[in-house]
Amino acid sequence: MSEQMIRVQLPDGSVREVARGTTPFDMATSISPRLAAAVVVARIKPLNTTPELGGEDAGGSQTEESMYSGAPAGGERLVDLSTPLEEDVELWLLKEQDEASLKVVRHSAAHVMATAILELFPETKLGHGPATDAGFFYDVYRESPFTETDLAAIEARMAEIVSRDEKFVREVEPREVGLAEYEKSGEFMKVHFIEKFTKPGEEISLYRNGKFVDFCRGPHVPSTGRVKAFKVMSVAGAYWLGDEKNQQLQRIYGTAFFNAKDLDAHFKRLEEIKARDHRVLGKQLDLFSIQEVAGAGLIFWHPRGGLVRKAMEDWMRDECIRRGYSMVFTPHIMKRELWRISGHEGVYSKDMFPPMELDDAEYRLKPMNCPGHILIYKNSPKSYRDLPQRYAELGNVYRYERSGTMHGLLRVRGFTQDDAHIFCTPDQIKGEIEGCLDFADAVLKTFGFKEYRVELSTRDPNKAGDFFGTTEDWANAEGALRDVLTGRGLTFDSFPGEAAFYGPKIDVKLVDVLGRMWQLSTVQFDFNLPKRFELAYKGEDGELHQPVMVHRALFGSVERFFGVLIEHYAGAFPLWLAPLQVGLVPISSDKHLDYGRKVKAQLEAIGLRVELDERNDAMKAKIRDFAVVKTPFVLILGDKEMATDSVSVRTRGKGDEGGVPLEMFIARCKALLESKSVEL
Amino acid sequence: MSEQMIRVQLPDGSVREVARGTTPFDMATSISPRLAAAVVVARIKPLNTTPELGGEDAGGSQTEESMYSGAPAGGERLVDLSTPLEEDVELWLLKEQDEASLKVVRHSAAHVMATAILELFPETKLGHGPATDAGFFYDVYRESPFTETDLAAIEARMAEIVSRDEKFVREVEPREVGLAEYEKSGEFMKVHFIEKFTKPGEEISLYRNGKFVDFCRGPHVPSTGRVKAFKVMSVAGAYWLGDEKNQQLQRIYGTAFFNAKDLDAHFKRLEEIKARDHRVLGKQLDLFSIQEVAGAGLIFWHPRGGLVRKAMEDWMRDECIRRGYSMVFTPHIMKRELWRISGHEGVYSKDMFPPMELDDAEYRLKPMNCPGHILIYKNSPKSYRDLPQRYAELGNVYRYERSGTMHGLLRVRGFTQDDAHIFCTPDQIKGEIEGCLDFADAVLKTFGFKEYRVELSTRDPNKAGDFFGTTEDWANAEGALRDVLTGRGLTFDSFPGEAAFYGPKIDVKLVDVLGRMWQLSTVQFDFNLPKRFELAYKGEDGELHQPVMVHRALFGSVERFFGVLIEHYAGAFPLWLAPLQVGLVPISSDKHLDYGRKVKAQLEAIGLRVELDERNDAMKAKIRDFAVVKTPFVLILGDKEMATDSVSVRTRGKGDEGGVPLEMFIARCKALLESKSVEL
Repeated sequence: MSEQMIRVQLPDGSVREVARGTTPFDMATSISPRLAAAVVVARIKPLNTTPELGGEDAGGSQTEESMYSGAPAGGERLVDLSTPLEEDVELWLLKEQDEASLKVVRHSAAHVMATAILELFPETKLGHGPATDAGFFYDVYRESPFTETDLAAIEARMAEIVSRDEKFVREVEPREVGLAEYEKSGEFMKVHFIEKFTKPGEEISLYRNGKFVDFCRGPHVPSTGRVKAFKVMSVAGAYWLGDEKNQQLQRIYGTAFFNAKDLDAHFKRLEEIKARDHRVLGKQLDLFSIQEVAGAGLIFWHPRGGLVRKAMEDWMRDECIRRGYSMVFTPHIMKRELWRISGHEGVYSKDMFPPMELDDAEYRLKPMNCPGHILIYKNSPKSYRDLPQRYAELGNVYRYERSGTMHGLLRVRGFTQDDAHIFCTPDQIKGEIEGCLDFADAVLKTFGFKEYRVELSTRDPNKAGDFFGTTEDWANAEGALRDVLTGRGLTFDSFPGEAAFYGPKIDVKLVDVLGRMWQLSTVQFDFNLPKRFELAYKGEDGELHQPVMVHRALFGSVERFFGVLIEHYAGAFPLWLAPLQVGLVPISSDKHLDYGRKVKAQLEAIGLRVELDERNDAMKAKIRDFAVVKTPFVLILGDKEMATDSVSVRTRGKGDEGGVPLEMFIARCKALLESKSVEL
Repeated sequence: MSEQMIRVQLPDGSVREVARGTTPFDMATSISPRLAAAVVVARIKPLNTTPELGGEDAGGSQTEESMYSGAPAGGERLVDLSTPLEEDVELWLLKEQDEASLKVVRHSAAHVMATAILELFPETKLGHGPATDAGFFYDVYRESPFTETDLAAIEARMAEIVSRDEKFVREVEPREVGLAEYEKSGEFMKVHFIEKFTKPGEEISLYRNGKFVDFCRGPHVPSTGRVKAFKVMSVAGAYWLGDEKNQQLQRIYGTAFFNAKDLDAHFKRLEEIKARDHRVLGKQLDLFSIQEVAGAGLIFWHPRGGLVRKAMEDWMRDECIRRGYSMVFTPHIMKRELWRISGHEGVYSKDMFPPMELDDAEYRLKPMNCPGHILIYKNSPKSYRDLPQRYAELGNVYRYERSGTMHGLLRVRGFTQDDAHIFCTPDQIKGEIEGCLDFADAVLKTFGFKEYRVELSTRDPNKAGDFFGTTEDWANAEGALRDVLTGRGLTFDSFPGEAAFYGPKIDVKLVDVLGRMWQLSTVQFDFNLPKRFELAYKGEDGELHQPVMVHRALFGSVERFFGVLIEHYAGAFPLWLAPLQVGLVPISSDKHLDYGRKVKAQLEAIGLRVELDERNDAMKAKIRDFAVVKTPFVLILGDKEMATDSVSVRTRGKGDEGGVPLEMFIARCKALLESKSVEL
């Protein structure tokens, strides 16, 4: 092959020989003009690199960091369509529907916005402007704040820049040249980023569109005309480098999509997310509160929220017992000495609450339940006949989340783990993992989630030294996790090198009704703690062996799971979880109250939570009050119903369903409760 | 009436006129020689004193303190039979069977022991020697420790002193004379007590028997011959005044009764108490542990203990819901600011764990749940229609019990209150108190206690200024408590002046199978916190009013109640509470294992906790292992049982009950579970 030629392998496996310096856009054009029009950006990977372990996720795990720092992920990287190809590569031509394309167009939109800002407000200094999961932003410095009117003007100017269809052109120049120019123009933030991300003597890359030039690693869409659907959203303050002694920056948020339809859908989704915000619903439905005077990140469960929690806890505890777990209870504080033995004092101390000194000892709130369960295990000698030991606890743990990072029920300082630790023999590993996954599946299905994703985090075999435990331990554990996942027919993503230092794990992320993913269940091996605490059991051979230890949490955190439930159901819980299940509305508080009480008693006899509105108010107001708290059933009780021992049923989400005999309604509720049905 | 005559009223109401200076013994002799021989000590009370409120308890509430400090309880006091009566009095001549007599003979026994000690070991210095609920002790100082042999010698010498039948003679002398004598002889402890308990210029009282004289307020039995049945038990070390820089004293324990039969019964009871010690049983049955490395007073509930706790908690939570309580959950730490508002920082701080500083605020572990519940109440405006609000929580609280005071499950640093707070209108008080007492009754009956005592603590109307709240508040609350108790036909003891400063209360003390009383349930008004937190509700009149607040706990502490349950049942729990309910013993682990598994599945289907012993061991060993952990039922499964679908039943405490069809055994268990029967 000529030195001027390189080999380019396409996703279908075919290899083309092309002249060195051919661009991805040339390749697209050579394949078809339609492709050339549709392609947004390219991904390349040098040919003949070592194949990776766990290739299931190839192409799916491009991270934001690698996208903007240019760090290769498995040798792959995104490049402009205009980048000359200089060596043998695999090439993917990414179109709008490819996952990675959206962030590229958003990044380009950030440049378009910066262009508009400088055209309108040339005194502005630029910081950085990355794409995010929801859109993009640009941090800028300008003395006077940007107003709503300014934002509208910026958006209008962006439209103009888009219509100019300026090409994004990559340029390189010596670092020192770039630095000198930015220093001259007072662009202190650009100077900072160049100094931070590049080394002396290197070249830096710049992207130019029209007259606007920005220090940037790219890639970008071919031209501003490709930024078709965008919106400037809002502006918020932030201190330069997060230090309040520095200049106050303005962060201007926007979002962009490939078309207006996607943009509209995005805003509809934002509205839906807002309407489901568990903090708003928590207040509206009187489920829980966070009290300033008590402290941030500490949850107060109100009567109605407490009923949901009780239903969750009752189900979980009974299910644990049914599945052979023991419910244990361990203290909330333990001596610092214990946290030294467990190693938390070393690696986890800064995430714990500070010590309390008492009688010459120091105590700390537990951030985890493991050491407590280990002490129970160690309390008496164990033989192989005693294993597996499965200790479960609804354990209240406290962790120091930084001020300002708390978020409703989702990120808190005090929470309740449905935590369990399994101590077993190596032979029992597979059965135990199987049991954990089966249980996790039952939790998610029972609480009404149809879809979830599974992630397997394993050791990086090339960095065995960074991980604790023998090669055999890791191989056994990882093999068991993989086998069980495969055996259950679950597809999963693998993350080699992402395991904790003490063992591999499976994470289960549920997908809610809006398609959002929530990390909840975890099944995690631990080779470290059994060693630190010198755990043992006597084997069939009469010798002492170290048990395998597995941490697992299924809700993850009761608080967080409740938050997800609220958002998933928008507060309209399935019957079995609803705090108030049936509201009774007597048409006349004179004539129909006695019948109401009778109906209430009959419904309560099957364990339903019922409220009878005895007020002398209008029927409509009573119905509305029950509807506001999303009561599954509202029963209207008047002359006709009283005469026929029936009830007139209004079902949440379905409206008036007419009259039915009380018996029939009771049977319906019984069936719904037993099946834990999501539908009413 | 002559000035030389006084009036003495006897318990039957009759009044005798006798010469001033007549002694109680003279009175007894004048009534009958038999009485004179039987009487131990006398109680007198000046005639025509103001009758007390709550006279139900007259005569029943003599406390140890009043007995030895001479402080009159309601004007009454115990005196020697030889005390000359100097004014008009009511007189009770107490015989051996009177409750107060036992402590008097024990106090006299302490003097006899001190006599023996000084006769044998004259270098010994004396501290103090009071009677206790279980006997008596004397604190003494002597350089060399008392050995078992010494104790035996002391006991033998006591017998000799008893046979000498030395009269106990009360003498008085000027305080300064006594002090000088004790100082001369180096009796540093006696000097301390005289200085502490008497004032300069006073006379002090001494009691002499034979050559032995002791600073003492009395009273005593007439002579050492009345100390008929006694035993020197043990010796333990203690620092003088509890300060380890002081001399180390030796506390010598003994006990005494009026006759050998009572003494024997006492030792039998001690053995029974020892056999029921929840700390011993907790270990033997693997119910719980306290872990040195984690800290004192912190309980680890093991799998088997956890099952009992779960049964207790499930019952309590469901019963709360059924009775119209809401289950709430509040954080374990709250900002110090909140504890300032609640007042705990002021009056309770030293009983709390020390603060943790975080982000410029300080947090403290909650010692009580009230402020948390109050914040929930305050979270939204309340109207009279919303009341009563009843918030219940299994709240984990932490209190700083002093080092060395902890005792198993009974006195701990971390415990779980079944705590509730009721917020109601004044009109609702009676109904709510009624509900609390009904609930308390249900708790005690359900858990198998047949007997309990009720105590009412009220305000001292003469010291209204020491109590918080209006006279009307107090009158309403005390009236409601009294009315409800009376209405339920409960006898109760009243303790005027014993109320907390913030409100009156009812305590319920259960009586266990050994007749021991345990303070558990409390129903307590609080006029203070609603004021401090400015709680309010809108009344029917449209105005804001302050709600009445009632604290109540029924188990009291889940840990403590569990400890009492263990001792009450000696670990042999009723079926519904037993951690393991049925043990299955296949006669041959080859032939009968499958049948065992089938039986297990059928029993588990009705919710029973079952263990199948699959080991290839002897049947007897398997039966014994189940018996050791006090399993209610052990079923033997052999050829005959397998052929006829039956089981051979061994019932705890009843032994082999022969074969019954499996169906019948299941029906029996179902009935026992439903009725929560104590019997099997």
